[in-house]
Amino acid sequence: MFRTRLLVFLFIFSTFYCYAQDDNGVMSMDESRFPKKRQIIRIPGFDGYQTLKCDFHMHTIFSDGQVWPTIRVQEAWQEGLDVMAISDHIEYTPHSKDVVVDHNRAYEIGEDMAAENNIILIKGNEITRNTPPGHFNAIFIGDSKDYIADRDNAKDKQAVMKAADQEAFIFWNHPGWKVNSIDGSYEWIDLVDELLKEKVLGGIEVFNGFKFYKKALDWCVDNNLAVMGSTDMHNIVGYSYNFKEGAHRSMTLVFAKERTAQSVREALEEGRTVAWSTKYIAGKEEWVSKLFYASVEVSPVFHAKTRNEKTTNYYEIKNNSDLYFEMELKSGKGTRTVTLYPQSAQVISATEGQEKLTYEVVTAFVRSDKNLVVDIPLK
Amino acid sequence: MFRTRLLVFLFIFSTFYCYAQDDNGVMSMDESRFPKKRQIIRIPGFDGYQTLKCDFHMHTIFSDGQVWPTIRVQEAWQEGLDVMAISDHIEYTPHSKDVVVDHNRAYEIGEDMAAENNIILIKGNEITRNTPPGHFNAIFIGDSKDYIADRDNAKDKQAVMKAADQEAFIFWNHPGWKVNSIDGSYEWIDLVDELLKEKVLGGIEVFNGFKFYKKALDWCVDNNLAVMGSTDMHNIVGYSYNFKEGAHRSMTLVFAKERTAQSVREALEEGRTVAWSTKYIAGKEEWVSKLFYASVEVSPVFHAKTRNEKTTNYYEIKNNSDLYFEMELKSGKGTRTVTLYPQSAQVISATEGQEKLTYEVVTAFVRSDKNLVVDIPLK
Amino acid sequence: MFRTRLLVFLFIFSTFYCYAQDDNGVMSMDESRFPKKRQIIRIPGFDGYQTLKCDFHMHTIFSDGQVWPTIRVQEAWQEGLDVMAISDHIEYTPHSKDVVVDHNRAYEIGEDMAAENNIILIKGNEITRNTPPGHFNAIFIGDSKDYIADRDNAKDKQAVMKAADQEAFIFWNHPGWKVNSIDGSYEWIDLVDELLKEKVLGGIEVFNGFKFYKKALDWCVDNNLAVMGSTDMHNIVGYSYNFKEGAHRSMTLVFAKERTAQSVREALEEGRTVAWSTKYIAGKEEWVSKLFYASVEVSPVFHAKTRNEKTTNYYEIKNNSDLYFEMELKSGKGTRTVTLYPQSAQVISATEGQEKLTYEVVTAFVRSDKNLVVDIPLK
Amino acid sequence: MFRTRLLVFLFIFSTFYCYAQDDNGVMSMDESRFPKKRQIIRIPGFDGYQTLKCDFHMHTIFSDGQVWPTIRVQEAWQEGLDVMAISDHIEYTPHSKDVVVDHNRAYEIGEDMAAENNIILIKGNEITRNTPPGHFNAIFIGDSKDYIADRDNAKDKQAVMKAADQEAFIFWNHPGWKVNSIDGSYEWIDLVDELLKEKVLGGIEVFNGFKFYKKALDWCVDNNLAVMGSTDMHNIVGYSYNFKEGAHRSMTLVFAKERTAQSVREALEEGRTVAWSTKYIAGKEEWVSKLFYASVEVSPVFHAKTRNEKTTNYYEIKNNSDLYFEMELKSGKGTRTVTLYPQSAQVISATEGQEKLTYEVVTAFVRSDKNLVVDIPLK
Repeated sequence: MFRTRLLVFLFIFSTFYCYAQDDNGVMSMDESRFPKKRQIIRIPGFDGYQTLKCDFHMHTIFSDGQVWPTIRVQEAWQEGLDVMAISDHIEYTPHSKDVVVDHNRAYEIGEDMAAENNIILIKGNEITRNTPPGHFNAIFIGDSKDYIADRDNAKDKQAVMKAADQEAFIFWNHPGWKVNSIDGSYEWIDLVDELLKEKVLGGIEVFNGFKFYKKALDWCVDNNLAVMGSTDMHNIVGYSYNFKEGAHRSMTLVFAKERTAQSVREALEEGRTVAWSTKYIAGKEEWVSKLFYASVEVSPVFHAKTRNEKTTNYYEIKNNSDLYFEMELKSGKGTRTVTLYPQSAQVISATEGQEKLTYEVVTAFVRSDKNLVVDIPLK
Repeated sequence: MFRTRLLVFLFIFSTFYCYAQDDNGVMSMDESRFPKKRQIIRIPGFDGYQTLKCDFHMHTIFSDGQVWPTIRVQEAWQEGLDVMAISDHIEYTPHSKDVVVDHNRAYEIGEDMAAENNIILIKGNEITRNTPPGHFNAIFIGDSKDYIADRDNAKDKQAVMKAADQEAFIFWNHPGWKVNSIDGSYEWIDLVDELLKEKVLGGIEVFNGFKFYKKALDWCVDNNLAVMGSTDMHNIVGYSYNFKEGAHRSMTLVFAKERTAQSVREALEEGRTVAWSTKYIAGKEEWVSKLFYASVEVSPVFHAKTRNEKTTNYYEIKNNSDLYFEMELKSGKGTRTVTLYPQSAQVISATEGQEKLTYEVVTAFVRSDKNLVVDIPLK
Repeated sequence: MFRTRLLVFLFIFSTFYCYAQDDNGVMSMDESRFPKKRQIIRIPGFDGYQTLKCDFHMHTIFSDGQVWPTIRVQEAWQEGLDVMAISDHIEYTPHSKDVVVDHNRAYEIGEDMAAENNIILIKGNEITRNTPPGHFNAIFIGDSKDYIADRDNAKDKQAVMKAADQEAFIFWNHPGWKVNSIDGSYEWIDLVDELLKEKVLGGIEVFNGFKFYKKALDWCVDNNLAVMGSTDMHNIVGYSYNFKEGAHRSMTLVFAKERTAQSVREALEEGRTVAWSTKYIAGKEEWVSKLFYASVEVSPVFHAKTRNEKTTNYYEIKNNSDLYFEMELKSGKGTRTVTLYPQSAQVISATEGQEKLTYEVVTAFVRSDKNLVVDIPLK
Repeated sequence: MFRTRLLVFLFIFSTFYCYAQDDNGVMSMDESRFPKKRQIIRIPGFDGYQTLKCDFHMHTIFSDGQVWPTIRVQEAWQEGLDVMAISDHIEYTPHSKDVVVDHNRAYEIGEDMAAENNIILIKGNEITRNTPPGHFNAIFIGDSKDYIADRDNAKDKQAVMKAADQEAFIFWNHPGWKVNSIDGSYEWIDLVDELLKEKVLGGIEVFNGFKFYKKALDWCVDNNLAVMGSTDMHNIVGYSYNFKEGAHRSMTLVFAKERTAQSVREALEEGRTVAWSTKYIAGKEEWVSKLFYASVEVSPVFHAKTRNEKTTNYYEIKNNSDLYFEMELKSGKGTRTVTLYPQSAQVISATEGQEKLTYEVVTAFVRSDKNLVVDIPLK
């Protein structure tokens, strides 16, 4: 229709609010409420595995966290997790003046709400020793009471073994945290080595919140341990992670045969995981690579342009996942840098007559010093 | 790890910016730039059809729009359209003092950029008469010069028929706009009836920008015309549509056998479309219904709770699309209201022993006075 | 500089993240963290009063809330409050199996953090009776132990009077909540009338979260009680209030001589308050009016346009506050509707030769059925 | 009031949309429209100067831009500019096949809309030569026709002098752009030196879009030239600048005696400017310093804490502007890093008995290699 240049100046009503009024003089103004919704995080599965979004490390008021357990379940539901574990510290309970210390309670309180909202809640605790060795998460545990180590006398190993005796899955947390070496560097230590040899250690946190422990990635790869990513949340997830940026909480992507606790356990033991934090993913080459190819789709050539007898072909490359991939051309003649934002597409071009372009995915780590390299087929 | 209650107060670095510097004293600060990306709008296809996102009605400086044609292509690419038509007014060219009037130019200027970015650009124009009858869009047209009606002398019908002779696809725009009836109501008119009888009229705009012409929906349903939705954009799309809200531009969803201009034309002629604006969709019951069932997925019962011998089952209902569905329970015992936000899930519960719940989708219109009714199976 | 039409397609780097790496293989990825900052809510004072942003009604795990008290202080700091009171239920402590019941603790735990962050923390509790009368907040209280009414035996009035004896400031909460009348209407009740006559009642909640109890506004105006607005938050403020929308939590604006607890108390007793929720404000005409004129600024005429011997003058009208005003012209010839978004400006025009335009501010209530009317001077 | 842990799951209505319907079957869905509003950019003045937000460098379809001039005025209004100049290239008009070349038209077309919206529109053009010297902006010009240099034959200097003869204010654009030196470095050149000596050169762009030409800052400081910042926009401002991030367009802050074109001209000639892009500001120390102290406010000590006989005082530091300051402690004992986000506050602490803390503002440049240093008084 005809519009004048002043059209834009005619938008004179609020975009923000409206209201409904009942007959009793109560006006509801729900419009600036956050909607009650569970965000779907889109990450495809592959090879018959589902990709489950898991966070096995968070705290409540039952240790040094600041929220009631139901808040953790609510966060998991809203933020699209499939699986979660509350892992309050066994040996550190600063709220004990006000809160009765019982390391089974966080799980018991969250249990119903998780069940009713289709969240797989796994029982856990954090075994909390001085550094080194520091902290270990024990998940899939039984009654917490059975393995509480006497804080003063227990040997570090004894504290971990008590959980192991219950057939817990045990992983080492933030290995580079509060290290007591002079230069701040962190190293592989004897206790962890013993736990590894005794097949008690199942994984290591490579991402803890916004920290990336790069050496830990090599340790996982070299010893076939599960690569773990966690929030280690004490405060409120939505205050640390800027969801309005399209960000997500740090997590472990578990490639499971089914959406069940048993399948998660089996996948962890077989090390079928990739850790994810901000725009980075880290894991064993096999899994990082499969995750990339399951997420990214390349169109056949949709356009060709010939100039000075040289023909350039155009392709659309789509990232169907909520992951983020930044790619740099390693070989072939084509677009040099490609950024695949979550659920978005890019156009790339390549000189005619090539079978593929080879890119390094600089946001995907398969070792501390090595990124994933991928081939983009040109058809 | 141990954290004090003050942890959150330690986040003291900007989340917003960082910078890179080259050796020549030029510092780049790209970080507050919008990323160059094409958003994928997720709407599944069905029955072997792809759902193409189309906008067949927009303007440039070649009539009364305020942007160069390449901006329209750029918008289409960023905002996830598959198909677009620039439809500048034939008989209204207020910029003619500065811009040479040639109704083929907008298409010619946008052509290469569209081709290189995998946007299907369809040639069009808006035939612009007084109201009634008002405006008609002609798309899939040939040389504009061949059917430019003399503005002063041409009969309204003649102006439309000249485009029809070129085998254009013709639809009636914003039928309720600037009506000259006293009470502001808009009605079916003789010219349109003639065009219909002569099989010249292919569709009617039910959504124009943020307007919903409800009567036009009934006219389309009763006469098997394509239900159309358009932006009719003159200014900048991103200034009218608040994309940070997760909103999208108004558009026509076309269910096409292939992602080609020919398939789009065929689907339009067969009326395989649904119009989409803000949170509303409108169309023939068959297509609105298929679109809903293709988008929404219901889990088997994942949890059951028995209280006073009454068992309630829990189900997860997922909206895998970017559409928005607000549902109210019509029959069955279960959750009374469900809001399915784009790409999110909800939990619904239902009393055991029922085969389904029946909901009215209050945001999906199949007639001016009728919403889609859907069955949610309970397994 | 020269740019081609494809320029926009060159933005190929993430806007979101960057990273810093230390020497020990720990990479920090802070970039998607929320910044640690206290938002300034801009609302001017007037007549020598400061406008303090206050929320006197919220809960923690010490009654039926879901967060530790420090979270409430952190929220207040981030969200720009000056003054807060935690008001856990005296007679309702559903977490008592895990949390030791002590109604002084929430205050004690929050005290230091509030002091260190310049938040005025006022001690409070919610006296929780059946409906009617329902709930009363007592703030500026002494030792909670001294007035805990025996839950089973205490008369409603007795429970309130015990707090009154401590010289608490007492207000009636959400008067229309869970009313037991058949038609859901809520009315003035005897107990409240007694408390009023005995000068024990100081105010009534007109806004509770997203509810607007309109009748309560009239009761406050007619009895010179403080008009109160609160979140009554049990969950997390940032999950109920969509701050990314520029929304703010519901609150009471207190016009105080100084930024001290004493000044707040004095202002409450004199009823110098306006309640604020979503885009609405409500209060006595005197204070709502002064708040409007302190917030809004009108420029002298900056442009005049004469057409057919009729001259139209242009003015800029600025809203220097974070309040929101929607205005409809009541008398005078000029712009008919003006929406003053937070911290933004509009252009209005008026026929020459008028001294003012008179608008009704439809988002500002001075009675249940009356909006503020303002004069916009034309110079 | 009593709420169960499931309360949050009761929010089941859309926060996004609502609709109004008229009697004629036209439903309006305005709710996802962007509001029509002019954002106020808060930057205080000082010493009797107002801080005007100015962008003197942008393009339209009359050279190589992609929008009609009114879009530039609309952007300026929405984005809070006080002053703007459209500066289309004289010697580069790639749209000339479709657009009649007339370098006065962009100004003429934008003039009324600017006047009606209180935007000061200054006439300008970009004198476009090969590199070096590259491009110069001439603003406050007369009739463009009088100084159009013949593109093929005119000497670079002649082209500039013709504008100078009209008493234009002339500044050098993006001095480091497309330099033809082998190593990409950019240097002071003879022509510019001549223009400087002849008092024809008035300023240099230190910020051009997202580029920071650091050497140019030194040249401005050493030769008392105006430090300029511009968007040099060709596309759409809102597509390059991510306003939802709280970002703003690059601009020149002009410290003017009045909000008039004359005052702007006078301030430019006296070099009373600071350039602003993303989170950075750059300018002469005098003006950057005054801008900082006008924007930032420090409270008296509001809290003191004594531990082991050492007392720490707490202060609130407020940034009342939309500028961004990142500060690192240089001397004194107190908070080591402070990030002052736009319109927000921080708490800082300092050991008792000091008169001040001294910080380096790492986001404020007074030379290419020097940041502003500020004293924060402790009272």
